[in-house]
Amino acid sequence: MRHLLSTADLGHDEAVLILDTARELAQIGERSVKKLPTLRGRTVVNLFYEDSTRTRTSFELAAKRLSADVINFSAKGSSVAKGESLKDTALTLQAMGADGVVVRHGASGAAHRLANWVDGSVVNAGDGTHEHPTQALLDAYTMRERMGRLAGLRVAIVGDVLHSRVARSNVLLLHTLGAEVTLVAPPTLVPVSVGTWPCQVSYDLDEVLPKSDVVMMLRVQAERMNEAFFPTAREYSRRYGLDRDRFALMGEDAIVMHPGPMVRGMEISAEVADSPRATVTRQVANGVSVRMAVLYLLLGGSEPAIGQR
Amino acid sequence: MRHLLSTADLGHDEAVLILDTARELAQIGERSVKKLPTLRGRTVVNLFYEDSTRTRTSFELAAKRLSADVINFSAKGSSVAKGESLKDTALTLQAMGADGVVVRHGASGAAHRLANWVDGSVVNAGDGTHEHPTQALLDAYTMRERMGRLAGLRVAIVGDVLHSRVARSNVLLLHTLGAEVTLVAPPTLVPVSVGTWPCQVSYDLDEVLPKSDVVMMLRVQAERMNEAFFPTAREYSRRYGLDRDRFALMGEDAIVMHPGPMVRGMEISAEVADSPRATVTRQVANGVSVRMAVLYLLLGGSEPAIGQR
Amino acid sequence: MRHLLSTADLGHDEAVLILDTARELAQIGERSVKKLPTLRGRTVVNLFYEDSTRTRTSFELAAKRLSADVINFSAKGSSVAKGESLKDTALTLQAMGADGVVVRHGASGAAHRLANWVDGSVVNAGDGTHEHPTQALLDAYTMRERMGRLAGLRVAIVGDVLHSRVARSNVLLLHTLGAEVTLVAPPTLVPVSVGTWPCQVSYDLDEVLPKSDVVMMLRVQAERMNEAFFPTAREYSRRYGLDRDRFALMGEDAIVMHPGPMVRGMEISAEVADSPRATVTRQVANGVSVRMAVLYLLLGGSEPAIGQR
Repeated sequence: MRHLLSTADLGHDEAVLILDTARELAQIGERSVKKLPTLRGRTVVNLFYEDSTRTRTSFELAAKRLSADVINFSAKGSSVAKGESLKDTALTLQAMGADGVVVRHGASGAAHRLANWVDGSVVNAGDGTHEHPTQALLDAYTMRERMGRLAGLRVAIVGDVLHSRVARSNVLLLHTLGAEVTLVAPPTLVPVSVGTWPCQVSYDLDEVLPKSDVVMMLRVQAERMNEAFFPTAREYSRRYGLDRDRFALMGEDAIVMHPGPMVRGMEISAEVADSPRATVTRQVANGVSVRMAVLYLLLGGSEPAIGQR
Repeated sequence: MRHLLSTADLGHDEAVLILDTARELAQIGERSVKKLPTLRGRTVVNLFYEDSTRTRTSFELAAKRLSADVINFSAKGSSVAKGESLKDTALTLQAMGADGVVVRHGASGAAHRLANWVDGSVVNAGDGTHEHPTQALLDAYTMRERMGRLAGLRVAIVGDVLHSRVARSNVLLLHTLGAEVTLVAPPTLVPVSVGTWPCQVSYDLDEVLPKSDVVMMLRVQAERMNEAFFPTAREYSRRYGLDRDRFALMGEDAIVMHPGPMVRGMEISAEVADSPRATVTRQVANGVSVRMAVLYLLLGGSEPAIGQR
Repeated sequence: MRHLLSTADLGHDEAVLILDTARELAQIGERSVKKLPTLRGRTVVNLFYEDSTRTRTSFELAAKRLSADVINFSAKGSSVAKGESLKDTALTLQAMGADGVVVRHGASGAAHRLANWVDGSVVNAGDGTHEHPTQALLDAYTMRERMGRLAGLRVAIVGDVLHSRVARSNVLLLHTLGAEVTLVAPPTLVPVSVGTWPCQVSYDLDEVLPKSDVVMMLRVQAERMNEAFFPTAREYSRRYGLDRDRFALMGEDAIVMHPGPMVRGMEISAEVADSPRATVTRQVANGVSVRMAVLYLLLGGSEPAIGQR
């Protein structure tokens, strides 16, 4: 594995290796030292064309806990604004000696293009509406940690699937790992290509909830409600929000997930968000471990790579 | 001590412990190595909802000199703009493993609320018009360093007290440490609650200056002059600015302090600012030492805490 | 050498020392460890009044590879916006213990002024239209690396010389190192003072190209085309852009340089930019080595300085 661009590229064993490595790193961190010398002297560049303090911070922490040097290369106010292409930015970062580039970009496919131009490893931290593989990995990690398994797990992913890279990455990874996914969304927020995805689709949340072990709520962006022909965000919330009544429809061991940041009262009620069965903050914690595992495996995991680049 | 939220929470001995620890750390830095391994593996997050490069940089330097990893989590363009609450941001930072959160926020009381939600230590780096405790500690450190004592010291704090967290934190801390404080401000810039503060109030700067060992000028924000019924900033400067003539009214050993950034010609003349009796840059230097001491005592100071979290 | 403010201050031997040190550091990095402990405990502040992610990142990487702590002190949203002068910012950084200040400023001469106020070392990372000495050093390094020598080398610098600190720094340094420089620009983009510069001036690119060993293209800023009386950027490109036909006029060993970021299709065609005879990314790589050398020599190079400050 040289890059992490899409969960579609991950075979079952590779995906499990990442999850197992993350667990091992998390256990070392809890048991003894938080900081490992593994990536000392390596440089990880956070190349963010879109603001995302949470994701950027999670990668920054992961890299620093492995002793890498981290450069935050915000595209705002940078050469990009002076007309530099993604390719020239990529060549610049490579010339500066970046061993890994973590990229967030508004255009689907940007991470793949970047990977063609650099020798180092590229980690896709979200490209347009396409993929966000580390989010799917941390979600899978959290499900496995909480439910003890992934095979056969029934997972509902609820909300604006059309614009969600999180949904797509999760569907692909969960399928690889043997879980059964049902997408639940208003018809206008389901992508036309969904027929080719390895999952079910439903428009009726109340019908799906009782049959789900995991309910993953997607973030709602109010500015997209119009496109979805909802007269108001309130109307969306009434039909697809997870409130107390709907929460009661779920099995008593079923968990609620959310990639954050949540808009409480919109896609999820405060009561549900604060329930012990909501895994939101645990997902954040696991995100650091999973990203450590990814950086470790890409930049320093295999013996020959250590100390030789 | 788990958090540093308000100077009101500091007893005499605790405050002196911080000042003494700061002096010790400063002496180690001057004598031999600037960088200590004390907080290696710990993570300090600078959570700034308001821009303040000076304060943020001071904390960043302090944390790095103790070998902590530092994450600058600017609230601008972050999840906050996507509708995330302070509570969810707090839970996120905790989940990521923040051992300490340094928070600057526009709302009075924000640091206290944050401290209810996280397991780590919270340091208030300024909350609305409420408090800015490390500023008061570095001011006290500077006074003690320069004047040899704090007990009985006569301190005048001059300017826009109404909007100043620096003034409030200083009054409370200096009272605890035995100094006698007089606030000097136009009547419209004195808070109504001042009757409950342990200090004197005067409207006449010229009368107070000769009786003061320390004159602390507050920063003036031009946009607030209107609220204070001053027709112009110039008029304010004439009445409450520290110019050469007023400086001459002070005792010959008395010092001039300013939290910075100064607006030369407004609240302080260039001549006074550059006088050897002005401690402005010394305050900045001491700020790093005091913040090192606070982080050290909160995150790693007591023996049991070291290496066990 | 205490500061690096202008290439005019560098004697022949000093300049060669920097280039040789850079080569040595680059070789250590390739051979074994990328990260050296040389500047551990030292603090380098990037004080950028203008955005320049590339230059800032290059210095940040250079400092981190020498194990220095790096503080990015962006002037945007900082005290500067609250009315603080450059001098007070300088005094603040010094008080905080900055061992080196890397400054980018819109005003010519800003770096020199800063150097008067601080005890630490100042590195000019671009001041107005005046100088950008590390750019000239990395250019010289790249020429020497590629052509084997600098003495007698014929270098053409092409484009908006009037607004270019890169051009000025290069002319001065290359003259010191024995190269022969010809500036090529439209008459309206040549500074009036050029008569005092140690170089030739030409308005005819096609005439100069065959006689040059090195052709350095300057970045074009579309918003300045008007000042230069070019009706359109396209017209400029037609007269002074380096396209395939002009590239063919160059000697077969001659190289093309560009400080980046490039505007492909404007001052340089994509075909030329991607030619193996274009050194653009090599310049970026060498930039890190040269900046490591400068920081090393200024902050920790001479034996007495190491471990004693």
